[in-house]
Amino acid sequence: MSLGEFSVINRFFSKPVGAEMLGGSDDAARLRLPPNTDLVSCKDLLIEGRHFFSDVDAFRLGHKSLAVNLSDLAAMGATPLACLLGLGIPKVDSVWLEGFAAGFYQLADQWQCPLIGGDTVSSQQGITISVTALGFLPKEQVGLRRDRAAVGDDIWVSGDLGAADVALKALSGKLDLPTSTLEVIRRYLEEPEPRVALGQALLPLAHAAIDISDGLVQDLQPILTASQRGATLDWGCLPVHELISSLNAQGILSDEALQSAVLSGGDVYELCFTAPVDSRPAIEAISHQHSIALSRIGTVTEQAGLYLQQPNGEKTVLAGGGFDHFNFSGEDD
Amino acid sequence: MSLGEFSVINRFFSKPVGAEMLGGSDDAARLRLPPNTDLVSCKDLLIEGRHFFSDVDAFRLGHKSLAVNLSDLAAMGATPLACLLGLGIPKVDSVWLEGFAAGFYQLADQWQCPLIGGDTVSSQQGITISVTALGFLPKEQVGLRRDRAAVGDDIWVSGDLGAADVALKALSGKLDLPTSTLEVIRRYLEEPEPRVALGQALLPLAHAAIDISDGLVQDLQPILTASQRGATLDWGCLPVHELISSLNAQGILSDEALQSAVLSGGDVYELCFTAPVDSRPAIEAISHQHSIALSRIGTVTEQAGLYLQQPNGEKTVLAGGGFDHFNFSGEDD
Repeated sequence: MSLGEFSVINRFFSKPVGAEMLGGSDDAARLRLPPNTDLVSCKDLLIEGRHFFSDVDAFRLGHKSLAVNLSDLAAMGATPLACLLGLGIPKVDSVWLEGFAAGFYQLADQWQCPLIGGDTVSSQQGITISVTALGFLPKEQVGLRRDRAAVGDDIWVSGDLGAADVALKALSGKLDLPTSTLEVIRRYLEEPEPRVALGQALLPLAHAAIDISDGLVQDLQPILTASQRGATLDWGCLPVHELISSLNAQGILSDEALQSAVLSGGDVYELCFTAPVDSRPAIEAISHQHSIALSRIGTVTEQAGLYLQQPNGEKTVLAGGGFDHFNFSGEDD
Repeated sequence: MSLGEFSVINRFFSKPVGAEMLGGSDDAARLRLPPNTDLVSCKDLLIEGRHFFSDVDAFRLGHKSLAVNLSDLAAMGATPLACLLGLGIPKVDSVWLEGFAAGFYQLADQWQCPLIGGDTVSSQQGITISVTALGFLPKEQVGLRRDRAAVGDDIWVSGDLGAADVALKALSGKLDLPTSTLEVIRRYLEEPEPRVALGQALLPLAHAAIDISDGLVQDLQPILTASQRGATLDWGCLPVHELISSLNAQGILSDEALQSAVLSGGDVYELCFTAPVDSRPAIEAISHQHSIALSRIGTVTEQAGLYLQQPNGEKTVLAGGGFDHFNFSGEDD
């Protein structure tokens, strides 16, 4: 059976939007920004086989499609306003669409980010998901920007690291894991929580911020470059996920794989940010208030270059190695 | 050779943006709306093999990717503000990317709609293009809306009709055309001009408007439904492209194919709008000023239903048959 675009939108993506939607049509939507705010916009494209496995749970995929965009807003400290969804699907699979829509809407509702429009089309092969998130920032706020890291700033990261990368390796068949462990850590890969409230709370405190979707080292480097600064990270302070540490202790995960997962593992939607030393008490208060672990993992330095302080006292140069969108599947081409 | 995402963005999509860009990052962009305006946003997804042929000229594809979105803004009467581009490509082909970027930027420059962000990713197969266009409307303007067609309104359409559909049939191998004819009419399909200036000019004059990307009948129906009105179109007033009329006169195109192309042919980025009779002089002035043909093709009626007045005096019911996104390729599935 073939369903037209209107039917797909009407059946699965027509949840009413509130007063923020001022009319418009299926093709374009009109919105009013809150007074004295600037618009913030971002867009991510997710392609089957590259950014998600074909058999991933539809609910989780709907969640993640929006989450990765809300994470970009969070890294600016912006408040979500609305979102648009472009969906290319090879066939109309009602069960899949219902699951996808439920995951998408659950997160959209959580952050009051209504789906106001988009496009549903037929693809020849594979699922393509394109989400645009719109948010706003108070005009008077400089915002969290890449180029504002200052010498002496603490470098912080939220949550813990390593789980998404190890889950990806296991799901790609490159690592054997106990099923119970995989079931826990795959949620970090498949259903990440965007740090929206954290980003907003950091707005008056932090200098620079980014989500580490490309990996900690890969994403920290552009901040340092834009700010014309360097940094030293302390391995002992990096928040390694306890199950990842445990896999390492059991010999299932090598030291090298552990370090790579923590430093360069992509698809992580935690925030890495820099803030002056005198913001520590306020940042720790935010950590308690929002129940989000925040770790101080290093310091911004005058001298260029990104270094890692090893537990044995050695200091090594961290040379990129982050998540490259053209090598997601680990191919050598 | 494999190029990372940053390289692709830096090499092909890093044209500087002006003062409207207030900072941000590769991941999210910050913009200020002009005073006393509302935001208008829209998004279209184009997938290789469904929305464009694999061998289409890259420059034209870049143009069209933005054009179809600017056309959605035009149908609201909105002024373009900025755009975001999501691009999924199976490999980094510099010649193709240069052509695509040139076509995209040419149209973006024409309408002062800077590319402020987006995402470039690797696809496993085929090209996927997702564009979001952002625009604005004065707060005090009701705007061109679907639900405002009034009884007695004239129905207008810009430009001429039929060329895109006939070109699509020829390029799909369903119709043999003289090469010289095809070269002219395929531009309507491959490089459509969004009616941005027309939409803005109509803002104080028209009631309802839409672009007819899904076909005249298919797109007019939602206006009538939302406005709880009907309409009669006059076949003799429909602006058939002269080459399409000529193909019909030569017997290359059947009467049936001609009528189908004009009434239901999709991928047309002309505006169809309704306006009160007393707006005729002002609308004709806009036609002259912008050198865009505008034809009065029918009337909005109290009685529900969409009818066609045939040249022989008969009145027939127009029963849908427009462009269905799930049947673009004409398959029967």
